[in-house]
Amino acid sequence: MPYAHEIRVSWGDCDPARIAYTANIPAWALDAINGWWEANLDGDGWFQMELDRGFGTPFVHMEMDFRAPITPRHRLICEVRPVRLGESSISFRVDGFQGGKLCFEGLFVCVFIVAGSFEKRPAPDEVRAIVEPMLASVD
Amino acid sequence: MPYAHEIRVSWGDCDPARIAYTANIPAWALDAINGWWEANLDGDGWFQMELDRGFGTPFVHMEMDFRAPITPRHRLICEVRPVRLGESSISFRVDGFQGGKLCFEGLFVCVFIVAGSFEKRPAPDEVRAIVEPMLASVD
Amino acid sequence: MPYAHEIRVSWGDCDPARIAYTANIPAWALDAINGWWEANLDGDGWFQMELDRGFGTPFVHMEMDFRAPITPRHRLICEVRPVRLGESSISFRVDGFQGGKLCFEGLFVCVFIVAGSFEKRPAPDEVRAIVEPMLASVD
Amino acid sequence: MPYAHEIRVSWGDCDPARIAYTANIPAWALDAINGWWEANLDGDGWFQMELDRGFGTPFVHMEMDFRAPITPRHRLICEVRPVRLGESSISFRVDGFQGGKLCFEGLFVCVFIVAGSFEKRPAPDEVRAIVEPMLASVD
Repeated sequence: MPYAHEIRVSWGDCDPARIAYTANIPAWALDAINGWWEANLDGDGWFQMELDRGFGTPFVHMEMDFRAPITPRHRLICEVRPVRLGESSISFRVDGFQGGKLCFEGLFVCVFIVAGSFEKRPAPDEVRAIVEPMLASVD
Repeated sequence: MPYAHEIRVSWGDCDPARIAYTANIPAWALDAINGWWEANLDGDGWFQMELDRGFGTPFVHMEMDFRAPITPRHRLICEVRPVRLGESSISFRVDGFQGGKLCFEGLFVCVFIVAGSFEKRPAPDEVRAIVEPMLASVD
Repeated sequence: MPYAHEIRVSWGDCDPARIAYTANIPAWALDAINGWWEANLDGDGWFQMELDRGFGTPFVHMEMDFRAPITPRHRLICEVRPVRLGESSISFRVDGFQGGKLCFEGLFVCVFIVAGSFEKRPAPDEVRAIVEPMLASVD
Repeated sequence: MPYAHEIRVSWGDCDPARIAYTANIPAWALDAINGWWEANLDGDGWFQMELDRGFGTPFVHMEMDFRAPITPRHRLICEVRPVRLGESSISFRVDGFQGGKLCFEGLFVCVFIVAGSFEKRPAPDEVRAIVEPMLASVD
């Protein structure tokens, strides 16, 4: 089961077409990925990762397909799953649903860096220990 | 007991001082007020209020005091309570806490309008029925 | 020459790593595309397009590569150019620069719809008249 | 003459009532105050102030009155002027206009702190040298 992150879509997220403004959607996908880290890394998201654990995971690529309008009539459920762990990168798939209907799907690629620098580093062991079993169970 | 609205503060909400950027805080207070409506109006927030119920509640005034920095280390709990119901206006107090510590307090005044216009109207009966008992219980 | 849209990157756009938070970047690319419409459609952006001209251009796809961190030390210049006009879709390339250095590149695909609905329609003649010469000049 | 900061209001800033969503307005007022610093402090805003000059100016209070709806039909001109310089605080008035009409007015209070801490400090001499003549000219 992928991690499911709930977003409360509201009035202020919508544009005059009465649907969520597009720029909010990548922001929610990122919130969901941060939530995935919290759920899997003892409650630590990007903030604690950078300040307490000494590494960061900035984004180098994103791609999204918008399949159906998002509205405040349902919570938006963002399912997050890692799909690839490279030597120094990690990729996530994020799928957003409302009322069971697919609203968007996206792929996001992050690289591991040393906190406080932009120097690339290998995936930390603690991350490898979490993600490798998830990827294996998918095969 | 006031309505308590939980905000997940995260990395992207913080500025280089490692605390939530100020402009996010009124936005969260508004999210919390919208959540108060959902909790009290059969799940309807501003979106359904405007589109389904035929009235709106735009803001005419806000004031906020920022008491302590907000960080991703705790959820931000925003307590919302109506404090005044006028002929055609409603005022809310919103207090934000992290780990039991007061981070901000704010007062927000909205007016009732006819949806799709900016014409003022009296507070709807359905709102009066919800809010008057809350105000009475405070006295 | 592509349209160049200037963004003032500031403190509140940055995260604790002291660079622009990733979710702001697609938002800026969208601002730039809206600016391209204003520059080419007699000052009309998406708002006037939908309310006054009767058509909309929601996004169906975006992809972005983040090449270098974005900071408040320079303005961010977003160059926008249409790269394809289909029967009922339009694609834009957006490249973001700071101090002459490429910070991100993106591709965005929009479809033409009838305003107030999500019904697809052919590209309006007024748009075809603007975009076709731009595409021809690139060949 | 106060500093005038121009905001491009667009589609994505508006809610289904076709006006700027309230939470954007304090954010724009803050952008305008940051622009005031840039205009008066050799191009330096909050980012350079904190990282290069060693002081910060977090907000402790804001109050705003919303006088008229804000739309994408005009640029939003935010006039910023300092109205008080205390021992370790500074207050700004921000008034927003569209097409010459007052849309909002606000008062914002910031305190001077040592960068990287939340320790209060006196207003820096470089700030005092800029602001005192402005305040004197108002009297």
